Amino acid sequence: AGDAEAGAKKIAVCVACHGKDGKATAPIYPNLAGQSAQYLESSLKAYKAGERGGGMAAMMTPQAQNLSDEDIADLAAYYSSQEP
Amino acid sequence: AGDAEAGAKKIAVCVACHGKDGKATAPIYPNLAGQSAQYLESSLKAYKAGERGGGMAAMMTPQAQNLSDEDIADLAAYYSSQEP
Repeated sequence: AGDAEAGAKKIAVCVACHGKDGKATAPIYPNLAGQSAQYLESSLKAYKAGERGGGMAAMMTPQAQNLSDEDIADLAAYYSSQEP
Repeated sequence: AGDAEAGAKKIAVCVACHGKDGKATAPIYPNLAGQSAQYLESSLKAYKAGERGGGMAAMMTPQAQNLSDEDIADLAAYYSSQEP
């Protein structure tokens, strides 16, 4: 599983849309706070693999491709640990 | 926008994975409670259009294809209105 504390140091690129606390800054972005870490990892990996289109995929795919699997696990742990 | 009360009558196919209250029944499924309705609609429409792969897309795509845009709006309103 990921390390939420390590994840906290990697959220710079995420906060503009998902917030520091995982509450979306606009309704078109998903809230991530309290989401299941396993689901967050699976979504980020789907973006990274180019398997997800629609919605904000044009934005998320390149972001995810900059992330290692460890980054993905840490970010998922961080946002999952936020209070919904 | 969708009608949450109408949506409550359409959740039969969703509850096995997403729960009646929008709390996922297993960590591989996303929690939907309190998620933004606009994001839920955009995700369901992406599945319906076959734009989303990865994760549980093989399950979600046929489910979404059974839904009208009105069903999608109502389901999004219902789950968004659930307490996270």
